[in-house]
Amino acid sequence: MIIVMKPEAADHDVDHLVERLRELGLKAQVTKGEERTVVGVIGDDRLLHDQPLSVFPGVESVTPILAPWKLVSREFQKHDTVIDVNGVKIGGKKITIMAGPCAVEKLELTVGIAKEVSAAGASILRGGAYKPRTSPYSFQGLGQEGLDYLVEARKQTGMPVVSEILDARDIGHFLEKADIIQIGARNMQNFELLKEVGDYDKPVLLKRGLSATVKELLLSAEYILSRGNRNVMLCERGIRTYETLYRNTLDLTAVPALKEMSHLPVIVDPSHATGKWNLVAPMAKAAIAAGADGLLIEVHSDPEFALCDGEESIKPSRFKDLMANLKKVAEAVDREL
Amino acid sequence: MIIVMKPEAADHDVDHLVERLRELGLKAQVTKGEERTVVGVIGDDRLLHDQPLSVFPGVESVTPILAPWKLVSREFQKHDTVIDVNGVKIGGKKITIMAGPCAVEKLELTVGIAKEVSAAGASILRGGAYKPRTSPYSFQGLGQEGLDYLVEARKQTGMPVVSEILDARDIGHFLEKADIIQIGARNMQNFELLKEVGDYDKPVLLKRGLSATVKELLLSAEYILSRGNRNVMLCERGIRTYETLYRNTLDLTAVPALKEMSHLPVIVDPSHATGKWNLVAPMAKAAIAAGADGLLIEVHSDPEFALCDGEESIKPSRFKDLMANLKKVAEAVDREL
Amino acid sequence: MIIVMKPEAADHDVDHLVERLRELGLKAQVTKGEERTVVGVIGDDRLLHDQPLSVFPGVESVTPILAPWKLVSREFQKHDTVIDVNGVKIGGKKITIMAGPCAVEKLELTVGIAKEVSAAGASILRGGAYKPRTSPYSFQGLGQEGLDYLVEARKQTGMPVVSEILDARDIGHFLEKADIIQIGARNMQNFELLKEVGDYDKPVLLKRGLSATVKELLLSAEYILSRGNRNVMLCERGIRTYETLYRNTLDLTAVPALKEMSHLPVIVDPSHATGKWNLVAPMAKAAIAAGADGLLIEVHSDPEFALCDGEESIKPSRFKDLMANLKKVAEAVDREL
Amino acid sequence: MIIVMKPEAADHDVDHLVERLRELGLKAQVTKGEERTVVGVIGDDRLLHDQPLSVFPGVESVTPILAPWKLVSREFQKHDTVIDVNGVKIGGKKITIMAGPCAVEKLELTVGIAKEVSAAGASILRGGAYKPRTSPYSFQGLGQEGLDYLVEARKQTGMPVVSEILDARDIGHFLEKADIIQIGARNMQNFELLKEVGDYDKPVLLKRGLSATVKELLLSAEYILSRGNRNVMLCERGIRTYETLYRNTLDLTAVPALKEMSHLPVIVDPSHATGKWNLVAPMAKAAIAAGADGLLIEVHSDPEFALCDGEESIKPSRFKDLMANLKKVAEAVDREL
Repeated sequence: MIIVMKPEAADHDVDHLVERLRELGLKAQVTKGEERTVVGVIGDDRLLHDQPLSVFPGVESVTPILAPWKLVSREFQKHDTVIDVNGVKIGGKKITIMAGPCAVEKLELTVGIAKEVSAAGASILRGGAYKPRTSPYSFQGLGQEGLDYLVEARKQTGMPVVSEILDARDIGHFLEKADIIQIGARNMQNFELLKEVGDYDKPVLLKRGLSATVKELLLSAEYILSRGNRNVMLCERGIRTYETLYRNTLDLTAVPALKEMSHLPVIVDPSHATGKWNLVAPMAKAAIAAGADGLLIEVHSDPEFALCDGEESIKPSRFKDLMANLKKVAEAVDREL
Repeated sequence: MIIVMKPEAADHDVDHLVERLRELGLKAQVTKGEERTVVGVIGDDRLLHDQPLSVFPGVESVTPILAPWKLVSREFQKHDTVIDVNGVKIGGKKITIMAGPCAVEKLELTVGIAKEVSAAGASILRGGAYKPRTSPYSFQGLGQEGLDYLVEARKQTGMPVVSEILDARDIGHFLEKADIIQIGARNMQNFELLKEVGDYDKPVLLKRGLSATVKELLLSAEYILSRGNRNVMLCERGIRTYETLYRNTLDLTAVPALKEMSHLPVIVDPSHATGKWNLVAPMAKAAIAAGADGLLIEVHSDPEFALCDGEESIKPSRFKDLMANLKKVAEAVDREL
Repeated sequence: MIIVMKPEAADHDVDHLVERLRELGLKAQVTKGEERTVVGVIGDDRLLHDQPLSVFPGVESVTPILAPWKLVSREFQKHDTVIDVNGVKIGGKKITIMAGPCAVEKLELTVGIAKEVSAAGASILRGGAYKPRTSPYSFQGLGQEGLDYLVEARKQTGMPVVSEILDARDIGHFLEKADIIQIGARNMQNFELLKEVGDYDKPVLLKRGLSATVKELLLSAEYILSRGNRNVMLCERGIRTYETLYRNTLDLTAVPALKEMSHLPVIVDPSHATGKWNLVAPMAKAAIAAGADGLLIEVHSDPEFALCDGEESIKPSRFKDLMANLKKVAEAVDREL
Repeated sequence: MIIVMKPEAADHDVDHLVERLRELGLKAQVTKGEERTVVGVIGDDRLLHDQPLSVFPGVESVTPILAPWKLVSREFQKHDTVIDVNGVKIGGKKITIMAGPCAVEKLELTVGIAKEVSAAGASILRGGAYKPRTSPYSFQGLGQEGLDYLVEARKQTGMPVVSEILDARDIGHFLEKADIIQIGARNMQNFELLKEVGDYDKPVLLKRGLSATVKELLLSAEYILSRGNRNVMLCERGIRTYETLYRNTLDLTAVPALKEMSHLPVIVDPSHATGKWNLVAPMAKAAIAAGADGLLIEVHSDPEFALCDGEESIKPSRFKDLMANLKKVAEAVDREL
């Protein structure tokens, strides 16, 4: 922690601050520059995380040196985390494709799409049973029944399933029926839900919030790891900016940045990010080129009648073509599909 | 709903779309312009909210005409909603000041601050018992014990209390002990929590999400009203922008915009918005000048030792001065304090 | 300047860095903490502004201590700058109202509006002769002829005039005909134009760029002051955010922040910020409550036929009412109108 | 143009609006829905671009149907524009790599870097002679002398050169010495400069503004094309968002979106976008995968001593490796390098 004093700060302001640091068990090193006095704090400055040092008299600014997270960092674990989901390995050389409908709607439709994406090479089935919808008048998902349809699709295809949890009270259903629990963008800072999924070892797909920084995403992951669950994958799904031509702005720079800072696998969701089916293919390719470990892609056999996000869903035939193209890009960056 | 067709759209594309609209019970009016064909939908276009019309062949854009909310709108209710919280009326001519510490820490401290803000003219006591913190290593609040301290402070001062709920499983404690339940910015789109508080008539203070639009805030309020709870107040608390000099960018334009679109009271939180105590006073004055019905202000008797957000807390003596100044501004815009 | 080394940085990385700092005439103080080594730079760290220190081996982060500006700061000049524009003093106790049409269109219309706003209490006439328009097919302004109309309006009313310059090649016309030269938001970082107006002592109204930070606004002002022109006023006119309900997000927190950091007068433009005439009045009041030294307000006697920004222009009769209300708010915060 | 009336709009409000549209030579079609009356405007609604229709009594919202640009659109020209710069073709199957130092500093250094990037496969030399710098105290470029160094580098390598213009008064030097004139992000809406470069047929590289929308970028290009110059390439270089971990957020979704809407070549600048040399390579690959027609990459043989943007410059040896990797990605998406 580096504390810069105001030019008009008095000696007793500096002394008062140093005294407080000592009380907290930290050593302070005071340097008097020409225009400013600077106080460096030696010791674990995570102790200062909750201290409002900037309100101390004479303090101009406070700059932390250490990142506020630990378990998610490359410093803590150098090698990549590889998560094993019923035999599907996420985070290794092979890129994982998770595909399926936005929302689970009907049993036959779900199983049908599952078979098609599986045949095309996807290894995880995605599908929302509980849907977070901006309007109370929109389709809210089938709930438990939706989870059951996913279980049936898994039975028929062998694909593990990922589905989003909205409420900690549903944790039992997800532990029983889902293979990966998704925490959606709107719940990235629903800390009670993070704590809940942190108490089990069921793999978690944690999506970046609509306006969350990369650092906040890492801190939310730290919530889960600090409770004991190390099976966390991070997901970039577009952030909110002033640009309204597409639903969100896919922040692919976050992919290499996250890979550098953290050992956790990084997944990209080009479907929700763009909100337009014709932009999904180029951004899926770009995500792999940028270093993503996996993709989440919405596939629907009849987008015109999809109950949710039909605009961004691609048809199974297009998905098959896309897989062929993604394979080429993966190989160009020394990965496999 | 106005649907604009692409220049190359064929007649059968238009027919296909019109047919689908008829199936949904809506009438379509087709207008062929020089460069584009436009399809107007007559009837309640809220029926179309979940229909992915933009994926129909030949469709270029889809523009809704009606707002997707109803109960929160001025069209539904012309007069201002006034919420009675144990005798304190929120939303009328008198501006309501809610003040207190960011987090409830100790009983005596809480009661002491309550007495001071009450003496200075505040009419609601604020205090967080459950705290949403970005880092798992930060102070997470006292939980139920914190609520009990607020109850004691209410007993000694007569002030109703507002406190934030984080988890639907705690609803019982809040119904019993709080007078206003706060839904924080991070939970504005925690739809399960919105539904939960919507099932009672306990007043709710709903904060705008970090990157929520004004329209999304209204839709989240609609979730609560549509379950039966009409006692909702909206709160502008700063949005996330590229500017990093202060914690958030207080969007005061939202105040008159919300007042025009909705009948619900609008509260402003200058403390969380700015994150700096010296900016709280000017923004509190500006909020009242812009038409706010109330303010949420953090007050702490010893900000240097506050366990949460000490940077933005003002001392009771400053709060007293601020109240005198706010009174003058309130009168200048024909309100009372 | 505080330079934090990576945990894996070697001693020779630190030595290499310290050597480079010495070459630049600066002293370095090295502190070895438990997890990181920190290098403090003593001396004027503005010397380092152009040095890419973060590319040196082993460097993790570089944090400047001193602000990169000087002349615009409160440290350089404690008292408020008051600019005298033909007898109208901007930056003192009296709040300056600048009003007039968005674009200068016709002579009679311009003179008519000037008389009305003058009668209502405005002291500066605003009007665009050269218009920066997003589309090449929009009305681009009358150019020199427009400036002549402003000169005529000044002659008949005695009001000094402010108008926007777009091109350094027009400087001669502005020096001759305008009393304040406006640099618009789109030109806040047109550094050649800043240098040009910096070479004279004609007052300059510098608008904040659409996505400029407060610090960048100060640096652009520093460009002008560093060339010799000290007569600069800063203008907050709304920033670009994700919110699209109004044209821009008026960032009123910038007003007290700028007043704290700089001695220059701060003007607010609620008309361009909101883009809607019915939001102008509440935000004008809020701006004064937040501490603005002046306002820029668009007034047009026939908004339905305005060639530019009719949506945000208010009629002279409304402007008169607004002035009466602003006077009350000004007095409530110990200012005059 | 679709105009939606307020629910309370009277018949005479509709008549008044229709009358005004007729005066402008447009036909109006009025549709009375259950909750709103809608007025459709038939004819070229570009005529309405400057009409403030939303201020007419009873009008709730105004939605344009036609895009406000024409010459840049795919509707105007179906085939891709290919620009020939001294034999280097930009916009065809082959991806164009433009590389070189951020700023031109010394003759030998410039020629040396030019030879290295040419040998590695770059086909255009980039280098800034006039530099737009946030601070007046930063290195501002060598000006004309810098252009001369670029001319010398071109002479020795045969590579065409691209350099940024800041001031319309320098147009003569650029016409004489540069092969492509760059309009930087800060000048994307410097409309006088756009008009100036529009009057010649010298190729222009137009960078997207820091917070410009894709639509605004197209309108700025339209400025240039509408003056006669059809040799325009668009450049995505990162936009400003709330994320501060990297300098800007590279918006790669803009690449396929621009390619769909416009026939102009699209270039990506991963160096300025990320501001960090180690993020340049992954984002360069991602840009090609997303469909970019070319890249702008900063290369410097001694980043520690670069006078500008050393943080984001890569060394010639890394550039050589990068080119080999880019070639593989280009082939994976059926392009050549």
